[in-house]
Amino acid sequence: MLMARFIPPASLAFFSILVACGGDEANRLVAQPCPTSAPTTSSATAAPDAGGGETRASFRLPDNDEGMWTVDHFPTERLEKLHGWAPSKEWLEQVSHRAVRVGNGCSGSIISADGLVMTNHHCARGCVSNLSKKGRDYLATGFYAKTEKEEVQCPGLAVDQLTGITDVTARMNAATKDAPEAEFHAKQSAVKAAIEKECATGPTVRCDVVTLYHGGQYHLYKYRRYKDTRLVLAPESSIAFFGGDPDNFNFPRYDFDISLLRVYDSDKPAKTSEHFRFAPGGPKEGEPIFIVGHPGGTQRSLTVAQLEYVRDVELPENIEALGELRGLLTEYGARSAEAKRISNPRLFGTENALKVMQGRYQSLADAAFFGKKVEAERALRAYTSSHPELQAAAGAWDAIARAQNEYRNIHLPYTILERASTLSRLFEVARTLVRAADERAKPNDQRLAEYAEARLPRMQENVLSAVPVYDDFEAAMLEHWLMHMRAMLGPDDPAVKNALGKESPGDLARRLVHGTKLKDANVRKALFEGGKAAVDKSDDPLIQFMRRIDGDARAVRKTFEDKVEGVITKNTELVARVQFAVYGDTTYPDATGTLRVAYGELKGWEERGKPVTPVTTFGGAFDRATGKEPFDLPKRWLDARAKLDLTAPFNFSSTNDIIGGNSGSPVLDKQGEIIGLVFDGNIHSLGGDFGYDETNNRAVSLHRTAILEGLDKIYGATRILAEIKP
Amino acid sequence: MLMARFIPPASLAFFSILVACGGDEANRLVAQPCPTSAPTTSSATAAPDAGGGETRASFRLPDNDEGMWTVDHFPTERLEKLHGWAPSKEWLEQVSHRAVRVGNGCSGSIISADGLVMTNHHCARGCVSNLSKKGRDYLATGFYAKTEKEEVQCPGLAVDQLTGITDVTARMNAATKDAPEAEFHAKQSAVKAAIEKECATGPTVRCDVVTLYHGGQYHLYKYRRYKDTRLVLAPESSIAFFGGDPDNFNFPRYDFDISLLRVYDSDKPAKTSEHFRFAPGGPKEGEPIFIVGHPGGTQRSLTVAQLEYVRDVELPENIEALGELRGLLTEYGARSAEAKRISNPRLFGTENALKVMQGRYQSLADAAFFGKKVEAERALRAYTSSHPELQAAAGAWDAIARAQNEYRNIHLPYTILERASTLSRLFEVARTLVRAADERAKPNDQRLAEYAEARLPRMQENVLSAVPVYDDFEAAMLEHWLMHMRAMLGPDDPAVKNALGKESPGDLARRLVHGTKLKDANVRKALFEGGKAAVDKSDDPLIQFMRRIDGDARAVRKTFEDKVEGVITKNTELVARVQFAVYGDTTYPDATGTLRVAYGELKGWEERGKPVTPVTTFGGAFDRATGKEPFDLPKRWLDARAKLDLTAPFNFSSTNDIIGGNSGSPVLDKQGEIIGLVFDGNIHSLGGDFGYDETNNRAVSLHRTAILEGLDKIYGATRILAEIKP
Repeated sequence: MLMARFIPPASLAFFSILVACGGDEANRLVAQPCPTSAPTTSSATAAPDAGGGETRASFRLPDNDEGMWTVDHFPTERLEKLHGWAPSKEWLEQVSHRAVRVGNGCSGSIISADGLVMTNHHCARGCVSNLSKKGRDYLATGFYAKTEKEEVQCPGLAVDQLTGITDVTARMNAATKDAPEAEFHAKQSAVKAAIEKECATGPTVRCDVVTLYHGGQYHLYKYRRYKDTRLVLAPESSIAFFGGDPDNFNFPRYDFDISLLRVYDSDKPAKTSEHFRFAPGGPKEGEPIFIVGHPGGTQRSLTVAQLEYVRDVELPENIEALGELRGLLTEYGARSAEAKRISNPRLFGTENALKVMQGRYQSLADAAFFGKKVEAERALRAYTSSHPELQAAAGAWDAIARAQNEYRNIHLPYTILERASTLSRLFEVARTLVRAADERAKPNDQRLAEYAEARLPRMQENVLSAVPVYDDFEAAMLEHWLMHMRAMLGPDDPAVKNALGKESPGDLARRLVHGTKLKDANVRKALFEGGKAAVDKSDDPLIQFMRRIDGDARAVRKTFEDKVEGVITKNTELVARVQFAVYGDTTYPDATGTLRVAYGELKGWEERGKPVTPVTTFGGAFDRATGKEPFDLPKRWLDARAKLDLTAPFNFSSTNDIIGGNSGSPVLDKQGEIIGLVFDGNIHSLGGDFGYDETNNRAVSLHRTAILEGLDKIYGATRILAEIKP
Repeated sequence: MLMARFIPPASLAFFSILVACGGDEANRLVAQPCPTSAPTTSSATAAPDAGGGETRASFRLPDNDEGMWTVDHFPTERLEKLHGWAPSKEWLEQVSHRAVRVGNGCSGSIISADGLVMTNHHCARGCVSNLSKKGRDYLATGFYAKTEKEEVQCPGLAVDQLTGITDVTARMNAATKDAPEAEFHAKQSAVKAAIEKECATGPTVRCDVVTLYHGGQYHLYKYRRYKDTRLVLAPESSIAFFGGDPDNFNFPRYDFDISLLRVYDSDKPAKTSEHFRFAPGGPKEGEPIFIVGHPGGTQRSLTVAQLEYVRDVELPENIEALGELRGLLTEYGARSAEAKRISNPRLFGTENALKVMQGRYQSLADAAFFGKKVEAERALRAYTSSHPELQAAAGAWDAIARAQNEYRNIHLPYTILERASTLSRLFEVARTLVRAADERAKPNDQRLAEYAEARLPRMQENVLSAVPVYDDFEAAMLEHWLMHMRAMLGPDDPAVKNALGKESPGDLARRLVHGTKLKDANVRKALFEGGKAAVDKSDDPLIQFMRRIDGDARAVRKTFEDKVEGVITKNTELVARVQFAVYGDTTYPDATGTLRVAYGELKGWEERGKPVTPVTTFGGAFDRATGKEPFDLPKRWLDARAKLDLTAPFNFSSTNDIIGGNSGSPVLDKQGEIIGLVFDGNIHSLGGDFGYDETNNRAVSLHRTAILEGLDKIYGATRILAEIKP
């Protein structure tokens, strides 16, 4: 599943490892120092015959469907050459208002004039789960609001619609001009906070300064923010995620991974004149198809030193941690049906993240793939040293490597204390409250980036939203984090001693979770609004615990920002300049959670020598069903079998270059009409984090015919069909 | 903990990944094709200035404490040079009869004339756990037999005492001479089986043909096998493993990791005139100290292609699988105190194995460490091509690399279906019964190696031994294995379909575990003795399941043996010849689970720039205690505090080159008297699998003074002290 973050949006961050780079406040939460941006060279390598005497012409993008393009910088010529057709400016402008961002890690599309939004089931899964309770499990039974009145609010799930983009590069650059490395980060944060604050004029406006091309450009993205989002339809989890973890990121596939939401404005369906229509047919071979969405982050510009760190340290550590969490959650769910209902959303996300990490690791451990990255860097460095005008950048790769080595030394405390979350909603809330109290007492430009004035409303939303909390599960997760901390940092580490004292992780976790009053929204509200005075005098055990440990986390964050992030950001900009010099503006920026268009075509691939057909059918799902989880079709589907055209297309694969965050993106034809709904990539697409491999990187989508057939014959969603049909 | 295998000896194999290479029937169960043996080059690299024109003199062992030496090939001169003293032949001969092998993965020492054997607590942990039951948890309370009558039998725990070594190289070589690669393995197995059969003249004799120097030599090791082993004393697990997983493989350390067993002969304490005595004092700085034990296996001769596989595929996969199992077992234990008692031994072993894998991975992911291996191989290959007499070996590295690539393609089905166990005792028993029925119908020389005539008694012992089985836990483990199989091979794999049919992993596991009668020793006995006829007509669901799936496992094993193992064995022999040519017989063979002597001295090291003192004290343990697991001292210790000399030495570190399997080895002074008991290495010692790094590879032992003080003042083991004191 291609979420940028897998977690229910309101539950905040998790282990940092599960959070894609870029997008939202995720910038502060990434496992890898977020490349603060340069044009990709990953697959756009130097031509192999370039030798040591690279010229600008040696560098070019390969002739394939690589690229996640911004709408204001679209490769029209290239696309005409490759597919014989390219969309107009108007086409691009139009789709950019119709494609939305859903929650913190998904994409979606507006599909009616009354605020109907289509996304994946897995993007609304947190909501479906939160609306469930003992004896009423919408993940198991599905949900359909037969009338508008039955539409239920999804706590904490916001939808953002892009309304405008402004170039703020000059102002950003002016603010950091001549800043030494150690101050670079602070100065950049300050000006970013100021720009966003000026832009965010009201509660329905969201503003993000986005770094493109790793500092080549800074754009201000302005959104219409819909905070009142309601659930309209969600199928049973068993068909939305048919095949479960074994089939995830695999193909052939048979998933009805869709949900329908509706955005509301003043308690009424929002008026959305800008919306997509469904196309009369699906994708056709040889025709270009488009995916418009919000890919969360790619890391195609990392240097070899950074990639080595990712391959040798970060991914193995993350894979182990996720594996452990997977085992723990699987067994937690075996306690009872209720325990399973409570823990399943997290298991779901954990398994997804685990496959993502495995896919990435496989790419980087592949000597040929890695060799290309090494060769591309060599060529770029050779070009740099033979061009005097680029001398300022000559030391950038080594500077990044040195910062990366610094990071090796602090990555454990940094990821565990600061970036990783505890998996506990209460812990996260407590941290936000304690930090907000401290940060809001400072001038806007001196705060931790995520507490800048323009970002506070989202933070408040999050802290106050009514996400259910289950004491036992919270305590289990908090205990697990404390155990993990002690295991990784060692029992003699001062931060570990400070956190645990003489308590065991389990005793401490239970004392905090059972003793805290933060489950009460009024208590949270009082602490958020009461600010530092209220927090300082709070006797809530979790608030007190957080105040005790926050200094350790802040200290390592400061070291990270000054010695690692600042250095990498600054030097990545220098590398980016070289990349500009050779690629010019003929390429696309790394994904950053902002709107992108990817083009491609319907296509299978070869898997271990055997061809994979790009389209599956309804009939295939019935053949694959065993009646046992995760291959059990819902009763509604079994009952509807006779009514269905079993030869109708179900899922399909295409060559579009997408990544986590694209979940829920519409797939469009030349007319800009919906022919599918992206919900996954194949396993090879996961290496797409570092580079696009046209031979086997495929996007996986739900076919428009399956959507319409399913809504009609299985879910009887007649009012919805009437609403979306032209 | 330095077990070669972590599991209670009677519970057979586990995931292959937990089993050390070499030793016992483990030869058939290793995750890495067991290097069938050559002299080490890992740390014994070519001298750095050798360049391309290597001469024999360029290759030499560094001047440090590297090496696990055989007693019949001991580096007397080298040792005299390094430490100014070397043991005599008689000294070596004597210790080789006094040091024993305990179970399948540990070492031990005979310490009285009446069969008293000292080993680690963790080596007898399976026994202590198996003797426990609800309401009587000897892991928690400790165990001490105040009288001989109270000594209780440890089911399935055997002790092997070396009685003789015979060189069988000529006969082995004659049998495989001119054999093509695909037949090499079968021919070698056949002659091995024949030699072992001739040697194993009765139930108290154990015989193993051992491959040394990867085929440079084959030796027949003959043992006196004690099958009736009884528990005499085991301290509380909380002090035996004080600091638990967080402190495991770390130092400073405070573990009383000892247990005392007694071997019996005809229901009476065995007469053991050959036994060690305790030295009057402990290790002294500057004096050589010796560790005599049974290191399970090292892989110091792997080629670069093999090491790349271990680094990029095997270790990451194993670390993930172990991490997942760790999470599952942790949470399983949270169900209840009883669930914790049942699952804890496996958690314990899982966490130990996980640290081992992490340590190994860290070494191989270290560019400097790996670079040395690359350079050593380059030098060896250069030497080969410049010496016409070695031309036969010129293609060996590439042949190994090709076989390794073959292995990449089949490693998942091979490790999961054939080498990995299911973690379920019942599953393993069923497999043994089904295979024994098939194999025993064949001539001795055509059987799977572990079913050769000479090995059957041990197999029978194992199948019939009374290890407690807990249905719920067995089913959980079997379900986990089935889930793992489906996840790794995919739901469309024919073997997965064959195993699961239309059942879910959980339903199938529960049906098999609850339905099988194999929990009854009489049923097992009838099936083992009834042979093929009895097994074929059995309606036991687990036997039937095993018969259904065994073909898939056998098929991939055959491919492995013919296309991978045979090729690697044969070509590793060729590489070994080159190594002989350059190192001559001045080096030691890779560890193979047979008796070795490692020398060294008391020494700390530097950890992140800070010196680590090599000796800890009793007082340190009391300082470190928090009263909470795993830092909780037992009541007996807290009560005895006033009686103890808190400045007395507790644990110490030394430079001896040891590895998994050395757990329980005695540490000896020049007089061959006991000054300590090895129970661990530091984290850096784990890279010792691939090479010895003198800067930080350390063995960790329990001091003799702590042993004697503890037995006296804490456990009041007066009859034992009387027995072992001279």
